[in-house]
Amino acid sequence: MALVFPFSAIVGQDEIKLALLIAAVDSSVGGVLAFGDRGTGKSTAVRALAQLLPKMKVVVGCPYACDPAKPAASCEHCRGKSEAELKSRQVPVPVVDLPLGATEDRVVGALDLERALTQGVKAFEPGLLARAHRGFLYIDEANLLEDHLVDLLLDVAASGENVVEREGLSIRHPAKFVLVGTGNPEEGELRPQLLDRFGLSVEVRTPEDLATRIEVVRRRDAFERDPEAFIAKWKKEDDKLRRKILAARERVSSVKVPDATLESAAKLCMGLGTDGLRGELTLIRAARALAAYEGDASVGDKHLKRVAPSALRHRLRRNPLDEAGSTVRVERALAEHFAA
Amino acid sequence: MALVFPFSAIVGQDEIKLALLIAAVDSSVGGVLAFGDRGTGKSTAVRALAQLLPKMKVVVGCPYACDPAKPAASCEHCRGKSEAELKSRQVPVPVVDLPLGATEDRVVGALDLERALTQGVKAFEPGLLARAHRGFLYIDEANLLEDHLVDLLLDVAASGENVVEREGLSIRHPAKFVLVGTGNPEEGELRPQLLDRFGLSVEVRTPEDLATRIEVVRRRDAFERDPEAFIAKWKKEDDKLRRKILAARERVSSVKVPDATLESAAKLCMGLGTDGLRGELTLIRAARALAAYEGDASVGDKHLKRVAPSALRHRLRRNPLDEAGSTVRVERALAEHFAA
Amino acid sequence: MALVFPFSAIVGQDEIKLALLIAAVDSSVGGVLAFGDRGTGKSTAVRALAQLLPKMKVVVGCPYACDPAKPAASCEHCRGKSEAELKSRQVPVPVVDLPLGATEDRVVGALDLERALTQGVKAFEPGLLARAHRGFLYIDEANLLEDHLVDLLLDVAASGENVVEREGLSIRHPAKFVLVGTGNPEEGELRPQLLDRFGLSVEVRTPEDLATRIEVVRRRDAFERDPEAFIAKWKKEDDKLRRKILAARERVSSVKVPDATLESAAKLCMGLGTDGLRGELTLIRAARALAAYEGDASVGDKHLKRVAPSALRHRLRRNPLDEAGSTVRVERALAEHFAA
Amino acid sequence: MALVFPFSAIVGQDEIKLALLIAAVDSSVGGVLAFGDRGTGKSTAVRALAQLLPKMKVVVGCPYACDPAKPAASCEHCRGKSEAELKSRQVPVPVVDLPLGATEDRVVGALDLERALTQGVKAFEPGLLARAHRGFLYIDEANLLEDHLVDLLLDVAASGENVVEREGLSIRHPAKFVLVGTGNPEEGELRPQLLDRFGLSVEVRTPEDLATRIEVVRRRDAFERDPEAFIAKWKKEDDKLRRKILAARERVSSVKVPDATLESAAKLCMGLGTDGLRGELTLIRAARALAAYEGDASVGDKHLKRVAPSALRHRLRRNPLDEAGSTVRVERALAEHFAA
Amino acid sequence: MALVFPFSAIVGQDEIKLALLIAAVDSSVGGVLAFGDRGTGKSTAVRALAQLLPKMKVVVGCPYACDPAKPAASCEHCRGKSEAELKSRQVPVPVVDLPLGATEDRVVGALDLERALTQGVKAFEPGLLARAHRGFLYIDEANLLEDHLVDLLLDVAASGENVVEREGLSIRHPAKFVLVGTGNPEEGELRPQLLDRFGLSVEVRTPEDLATRIEVVRRRDAFERDPEAFIAKWKKEDDKLRRKILAARERVSSVKVPDATLESAAKLCMGLGTDGLRGELTLIRAARALAAYEGDASVGDKHLKRVAPSALRHRLRRNPLDEAGSTVRVERALAEHFAA
Amino acid sequence: MALVFPFSAIVGQDEIKLALLIAAVDSSVGGVLAFGDRGTGKSTAVRALAQLLPKMKVVVGCPYACDPAKPAASCEHCRGKSEAELKSRQVPVPVVDLPLGATEDRVVGALDLERALTQGVKAFEPGLLARAHRGFLYIDEANLLEDHLVDLLLDVAASGENVVEREGLSIRHPAKFVLVGTGNPEEGELRPQLLDRFGLSVEVRTPEDLATRIEVVRRRDAFERDPEAFIAKWKKEDDKLRRKILAARERVSSVKVPDATLESAAKLCMGLGTDGLRGELTLIRAARALAAYEGDASVGDKHLKRVAPSALRHRLRRNPLDEAGSTVRVERALAEHFAA
Repeated sequence: MALVFPFSAIVGQDEIKLALLIAAVDSSVGGVLAFGDRGTGKSTAVRALAQLLPKMKVVVGCPYACDPAKPAASCEHCRGKSEAELKSRQVPVPVVDLPLGATEDRVVGALDLERALTQGVKAFEPGLLARAHRGFLYIDEANLLEDHLVDLLLDVAASGENVVEREGLSIRHPAKFVLVGTGNPEEGELRPQLLDRFGLSVEVRTPEDLATRIEVVRRRDAFERDPEAFIAKWKKEDDKLRRKILAARERVSSVKVPDATLESAAKLCMGLGTDGLRGELTLIRAARALAAYEGDASVGDKHLKRVAPSALRHRLRRNPLDEAGSTVRVERALAEHFAA
Repeated sequence: MALVFPFSAIVGQDEIKLALLIAAVDSSVGGVLAFGDRGTGKSTAVRALAQLLPKMKVVVGCPYACDPAKPAASCEHCRGKSEAELKSRQVPVPVVDLPLGATEDRVVGALDLERALTQGVKAFEPGLLARAHRGFLYIDEANLLEDHLVDLLLDVAASGENVVEREGLSIRHPAKFVLVGTGNPEEGELRPQLLDRFGLSVEVRTPEDLATRIEVVRRRDAFERDPEAFIAKWKKEDDKLRRKILAARERVSSVKVPDATLESAAKLCMGLGTDGLRGELTLIRAARALAAYEGDASVGDKHLKRVAPSALRHRLRRNPLDEAGSTVRVERALAEHFAA
Repeated sequence: MALVFPFSAIVGQDEIKLALLIAAVDSSVGGVLAFGDRGTGKSTAVRALAQLLPKMKVVVGCPYACDPAKPAASCEHCRGKSEAELKSRQVPVPVVDLPLGATEDRVVGALDLERALTQGVKAFEPGLLARAHRGFLYIDEANLLEDHLVDLLLDVAASGENVVEREGLSIRHPAKFVLVGTGNPEEGELRPQLLDRFGLSVEVRTPEDLATRIEVVRRRDAFERDPEAFIAKWKKEDDKLRRKILAARERVSSVKVPDATLESAAKLCMGLGTDGLRGELTLIRAARALAAYEGDASVGDKHLKRVAPSALRHRLRRNPLDEAGSTVRVERALAEHFAA
Repeated sequence: MALVFPFSAIVGQDEIKLALLIAAVDSSVGGVLAFGDRGTGKSTAVRALAQLLPKMKVVVGCPYACDPAKPAASCEHCRGKSEAELKSRQVPVPVVDLPLGATEDRVVGALDLERALTQGVKAFEPGLLARAHRGFLYIDEANLLEDHLVDLLLDVAASGENVVEREGLSIRHPAKFVLVGTGNPEEGELRPQLLDRFGLSVEVRTPEDLATRIEVVRRRDAFERDPEAFIAKWKKEDDKLRRKILAARERVSSVKVPDATLESAAKLCMGLGTDGLRGELTLIRAARALAAYEGDASVGDKHLKRVAPSALRHRLRRNPLDEAGSTVRVERALAEHFAA
Repeated sequence: MALVFPFSAIVGQDEIKLALLIAAVDSSVGGVLAFGDRGTGKSTAVRALAQLLPKMKVVVGCPYACDPAKPAASCEHCRGKSEAELKSRQVPVPVVDLPLGATEDRVVGALDLERALTQGVKAFEPGLLARAHRGFLYIDEANLLEDHLVDLLLDVAASGENVVEREGLSIRHPAKFVLVGTGNPEEGELRPQLLDRFGLSVEVRTPEDLATRIEVVRRRDAFERDPEAFIAKWKKEDDKLRRKILAARERVSSVKVPDATLESAAKLCMGLGTDGLRGELTLIRAARALAAYEGDASVGDKHLKRVAPSALRHRLRRNPLDEAGSTVRVERALAEHFAA
Repeated sequence: MALVFPFSAIVGQDEIKLALLIAAVDSSVGGVLAFGDRGTGKSTAVRALAQLLPKMKVVVGCPYACDPAKPAASCEHCRGKSEAELKSRQVPVPVVDLPLGATEDRVVGALDLERALTQGVKAFEPGLLARAHRGFLYIDEANLLEDHLVDLLLDVAASGENVVEREGLSIRHPAKFVLVGTGNPEEGELRPQLLDRFGLSVEVRTPEDLATRIEVVRRRDAFERDPEAFIAKWKKEDDKLRRKILAARERVSSVKVPDATLESAAKLCMGLGTDGLRGELTLIRAARALAAYEGDASVGDKHLKRVAPSALRHRLRRNPLDEAGSTVRVERALAEHFAA
């Protein structure tokens, strides 16, 4: 396996790091969309997070890597079996790359031609969506993918199931993953319909202070010259983060969401005029995951405030009377709401 | 099977709930098209209704799930057999998702390649249309489907039969289902030709009062934390609705349609200038189903009034001299007609 | 077989009913194109006519349903055999639907893959055009079909033969049918080249008087509640029509066309400036069929007058100096000509 | 075989009849392109001419219907054999229809799939171009064919050989035919490059005098009612024409072309500014064929004058300073030239 | 083999004849692009040249027709064998037509399906590029070919090798040919990138003096009436040309290029502002071939002057301040340079 | 093998030669994009460099030509084996041409059809990307390739691995190569996203002084007349360059990058406003490779200055207020920075 740059050695980039950590704590928050400049290490951050995560238990022989403690309802292999009946092993959390040029059959899965031709059997050969189950699916420059493929991915990411109706196959299998996409707004806007399906969005910018830029290049250079030594140096920091994530995952379902918080979330969204209720649902979930990560027993304003830009900025409508960017608008709304 | 949010626990959304209930009572009303904002739970409502419906009897071995009491005239398996000859069993009402990326062969059915290759037989492999027979076919964002696929679906939904002429196959099979589509008018208008083929249309908006929004998020959250408990809590309400639907189905064919009602319907449609007579036919059918649902013996003004917006708003022509939206125009026509 | 609404129970719609009856008497008049509003029962009229027609005799085993008394010159099965050599049976007149989504191979016929694969034989599998021979081919919304398919259909409808040159096949078989298409001028104009190939065109409008609209809805409702009873009630009327058609078919070839009528037809067409001579040829044929239907021994002005709008309105050129619609222009020409 | 309207019974249409007769006398004149109104009997004229022509001798077993007296240099079957070695029989002159929807493989010929699959042999299956050899290839509405197919046809028509380079085949076979196309200038102009490749072009208009129109309809009607009788009535006229064509074919190669005629042809073309020299080459050939047809020993002005419009009108460049149509411009040039 | 019009009997057309002769002497000059009017005999000239050339020696059994004295480095069949090991025979110089409609697999070569299916071997079946090796590849109306095919051809023509990377094949074979294309600037301009890859370009115009036009038609006519006699009459002239070409080929590598000539070529190109150095390279090569053809021992101004228009006119940039055509600009530059 | 023009005999062209040498010393600098005029020998330079490079050791039998001393982590053949276990041999550095018309399957690799059909095995057949591993991939006129293919190439070039997800294959293999592309800005701009992925860019112009132009033509001519002699003449120079490259490769990892240099690089990039940090990373790497090539122990200003134009000019944003070309802007920034 290729050696990966340590998550804790990443200089700056606080917003994308936070979004990825939140998704790692509670994947139901939805995918992460990273906008922004080229060459700012978006892909580095995703790979770094994945290798930071603890290994996961999977059922031996299950084509979808089911969790033996909680096999997916739609998994034909594991469904209805008890944990005792299922043999398991530990594997790293998958980070599946969706390469440009992947064909639809490889993404969603397809008829297994080899078995069809040699054994005359109509079997399903799982695709990238199956392989990403319980991990990450990473698409660099999502805006270069064909629309229909993106639609497909978001659909599956939203439902956690891949429904395949093609080539005589009719399959439904679990496909819960954190979709991480990057996009460059200069190469064409994403459709609002799509934006809305991502849980969190982050803006990644080229750092503008000299010291940071030099430090980035220096660390990168150090890593490339001697990756093992570099990784060893940052191991302690990474281990600390890993323990925090594990603790947060256990704690998250017991974090309380006070009524006042629900109300704040709803008011913020109404004030900003987001369509539908995905805004507040995501806001609450992200804030709860953050509270869990930080060891807090209940969600409070401070959590809402930190996650609101990521959870809401991509859900605003164009406002022709307000030329401020979305980030500014979210921040203004936060200021007004919490000042009141 | 995944656990489904209870229909009776849905907050607000009265128009879509009513439209779905009417379609459940009398499927000849035609499909339901839900316009509107993202994230307002359109898909939740459809799934909730389906799981609310009583199981249905189907002929064992019939590829189209015929009703043993009334096998379809076009079913090659059951046609001409008496109920006594046909073994039956109970199954849930199907809600078939048409995933984006489904290929035409899976939608309409196709040559069964496995049998063709292994047995040299030209057999038909039913598609999603067959599977949706007697249930629901759900298309999220119908406007993202290719035109020709939508045309196909509406054609079949209108005729109740799927006529397949492809790949050397020449098949006709029953395919009566309630087509439920969602569309976002911001992503491009639907063609009037298509709109007209949907029986009912509803507008779904993001709720705008704080209490409702909070309650939606709260219930959603409660459901996600402990679905079994949540479902149990709402079971009684759901059972009551189910009994009402069943009673309405039995009653609907004996509900009277007075001449005055026919006249009202025709006058409304003439006043609004709807093309053809599908407007009044749907209006009458929907009002009759509503009367049956509410236990009334004959259709009256109150029924017409409630269903008219859903039955007519998508059949109006653009009126350059009247800038009011279609809902407003239908309501104004109702007010004028019933005031007179 | 599904039960069909009786032709004689159709309220109003005189023009399309007349056009269909004329085509039933003499199919050489050419197809019928129905323009107009959605939901006005165009499809109902076609199906009703077809079921009204007497059964027809066909050669047993002939893939093209040849008439034993007059097998088609291009039928490889029957050509050159005497009526005595050919076994026959009675079948209903076919009404073949061309479903949207039909592939070209199913329309024109194609290589029989099953026989090719299993027996290594290059056999022709007839398509919809073959099945429509001696009956009707119905295309709802012909303007949604791809241009090249429409071209094909009109070509075949004009020549009465289907010439197949594809996939190594080189076949020519009889395909005489009445092409009935519907089109909505709002969804894009048809090319003049195409319009000209239809024998008759009719305009179907939503009825604008209250009583008619109510009557339509009432009859439709009665039919849907108890189709058998409804059909029985109108059987006598339908039988009368059937006898009239049969009598007209026998009589048509002996109806005289006086020189004065030929002259009137030619003058009308010259006055209206129709291209070519298809205008007068169709006018004469349609008038003769009408005369036969009404029991007249020769064609007269009254016949010309009734069929002229259907036979000519789609053959007029745009006249920038005359803003009147084509129907008005034909009627004005009739008035002027017969006043003179 | 279907009965065909007799050539000599065609009313009017002198220009297209002359062009077809010239092509029948000397096919090296090139194809005939008929412009003009719909429904003016262009197709009737072509079929009538073909059935008028004397049968032709072909080599038995030759896939390209070679003339035993002069087998094609590119025919693999007959090449190098003497007339004595080749068995022959008489067949009618082929008139091959190129149906809309014909696929390229059927037009140019293709791999014989049946033989490939059953015998493992890579054999060529001749297409429509092969079948049209020594006869006519008729394309109704050539402007509806795809450009690349038209390019192909003209290419073959010009060279008299079909060069096939596809699907692993590399074949060259004789394909000398008179290409007859019809086009409607209202449906889009033909490219000048294409126009130039047709030998002759004719304008077909709807007749504008009453008597002619009535006569056309009357004869058409008589033919349709009793084709055998009608054909019998015109047989003598047709026989006379046939003898004239045969005589002309024998005579054509000995008709002289005086230098003065060559000069007139060249001057006419220079005056009209036609590109290249195809104008005068065609003019000379057509005039010579006409002289032969009329029994003249050498080509004179009268022949040039009659064929010039057909041979030249489609080769003129747009002249922005001269708004006259091309026919008028050719006639003016003739008048000036021969007046001088 | 079809009889070909003799090269020496071609009237006028000096520029294209010279360009073809130069390419025949030294094929490294690059292809010839002929612009201009339709019907001016461009194709005649190419075919005439090819049949004029002496036969060439090829290796028996070599799929690429290698020269036994100098087998291609990339020929798998001949590479590394001495002339003694290779059996040879004489064949005419190939002139390969690239018919419109040729598929890419036939142009570049493809998997030999017959051998793949019957013997299970992945063999290469050479295409037209292979067949044209050491001869001419002729494309009539190159601008009607798809861009990607033209790119391909020019690429191969430039490198002299065909690199095939498709269908699991990875082949490289010799493909040195003179590409001769014709184009009509009225049907769309060629991209400068493409123009630059042709060695020489010529403008072919319709002759504008009467005598020439008459002579062309007279000779054409004489040839068509009795090709053998016509060819015999011009044989002596053709033989003389052939000997001149053969002599020039032997002489060309020893023709000197004085420094003054190199300087003149470079100055001319700099003055005209041609991009890159292909201008002077071609100019030098063409001038040297001309010197060899004319029996001169070294290249001088007179040679440069004659070939400069063909070698440079298609390499000029549009000059918005100089509206003169490219030919005029080249001639002006020549006049200035050699006057100085 | 074809004989190649010697690298050291190339006249001028300093920038492209330097860029290629830098890439030869440290391939992690990224690909080289050469903009500019046609016919300036870009392709000659690449081929010349490749043949200059010393042979490389590869593992015998490895489909990806792994280095036995350091097999790729993603190579299934070599992974985990020690150098002792792997047999090796010497091969020339590959320069793989990506011909226009290459299909995606040949570029990325595909299912080995031959083995699939004959042995029923699903094996991977490596494509051009695999073959280019450890060498060069050359694309002439990259702007003529389809976007998705270019995306693919850059993706692979950036990651050094080819991830194949198609046709039932799921393969990842090493593909580290120097991508060399040429582009002509006149034929359409490249997307900024793509530009940024190339390490270095160079502008190649037609030389504008007479002596150089003459010298280029003279050397080219000398090479073409007697390549062996020409190569022999330049061998010593080439050998010297080769030794310099080898020495630089060994030295490069020990060249120091002082903090002042890091700071200069960062300041330059910030001043020029390049997006992301790829600008300074490339600048540092290229400067280090140059230092190594010139035998310097640490990177200094002089190295930065020489490589800055190539490393940065294609990363600038359009500046509407600064109309200077990018090269000028980089040079101005250098002047200001180092003056300060």
